[in-house]
Amino acid sequence: MTAIPESARAVLESNRLAHLVTMNRNGDPQVTIVWVGLDGDEIVSGHLAEHQKVRNIRNDGRVVLSIETDKINEMGLQEYLVVYGTAHITEGGAPELLQDLAHTYLGPDVKFPPMDKPPAGFITRIKVDRLGGVGPWAQ
Amino acid sequence: MTAIPESARAVLESNRLAHLVTMNRNGDPQVTIVWVGLDGDEIVSGHLAEHQKVRNIRNDGRVVLSIETDKINEMGLQEYLVVYGTAHITEGGAPELLQDLAHTYLGPDVKFPPMDKPPAGFITRIKVDRLGGVGPWAQ
Repeated sequence: MTAIPESARAVLESNRLAHLVTMNRNGDPQVTIVWVGLDGDEIVSGHLAEHQKVRNIRNDGRVVLSIETDKINEMGLQEYLVVYGTAHITEGGAPELLQDLAHTYLGPDVKFPPMDKPPAGFITRIKVDRLGGVGPWAQ
Repeated sequence: MTAIPESARAVLESNRLAHLVTMNRNGDPQVTIVWVGLDGDEIVSGHLAEHQKVRNIRNDGRVVLSIETDKINEMGLQEYLVVYGTAHITEGGAPELLQDLAHTYLGPDVKFPPMDKPPAGFITRIKVDRLGGVGPWAQ
C-alpha cells in the first residue's frame, strides 16, 4: 500500500468523476463511472445495489480508477490521475456515504439517494498500489 | 462487430477525453487517457511513440473506452459511454490523425504535434463489440 500524495488527494476529493475498472470472472475488464472520496488512506465509493462491479471486486480485488483534472500541462494536455489499487467490499453505510459525496458531486443542498428508505448497500474500499497518469503524482 | 448508433457517434466525435483500458501481458488492466475520433465504424486514436498501450494491444486486442458526456439524466447523474471493443495497431499516420483530432480537442488553430518532424507513429483502430454506460446507447 502506498501513501497518497497531497496532489492526488486533491483530485480524489474533487467533484470529478472516477472511471472504475473491475475484472469480470473471465478476466475481461468492466468499466463504470462512480463517485469517490477518501477515508484516511483508502478511496471509498458507495453502491445501493449489488452491481456487477461489487460482485467483481468480491471475486478479484484488482481495480483501476482514472480521473480527469482541470489542470492543463505545458504540452497543452489535460492532467489526469490513474490509481492502481486493491479493493474489498464492506456491507452497509452506502446511503450515508452517497449523501456525503453528493454534496461534493451534485451540490450542498442535494438529497441523495432521493428515496426515503434506501437499502444499506455496499462500500468499495480501495488501497492504492501505485499511481499513474499525467501529473505530479505519476510514478 | 456492432454498428455505432448516432447517439454514441456524437460522443465519440465530441471533445471529451476517452479513458482507454488495455491489457498488460500478466492480465492486469492498464489505463491511459487518449483522444479518439471515428473512421467509418472504427474508433481511431493516434500515438507518436510505441507506448505500453500500443504493445498491449498488439499482444491482446481487448480494449474498453469510457467517455463522460455533458448530459445529465433524470436522476441528476451524468450520462457516459462505455465501449467494449477489439483493437489492432497500424503503423504510420499518427501526426495527421493527431492534427485532425487536435482541432476538436484543443482548438481550430492549434498545431499538434508541436514539433516540425514528428515520427510516423501508430494508430489504434477499435471495432465495437458492445456498448455500456448510462445513456440511450446502453445495452
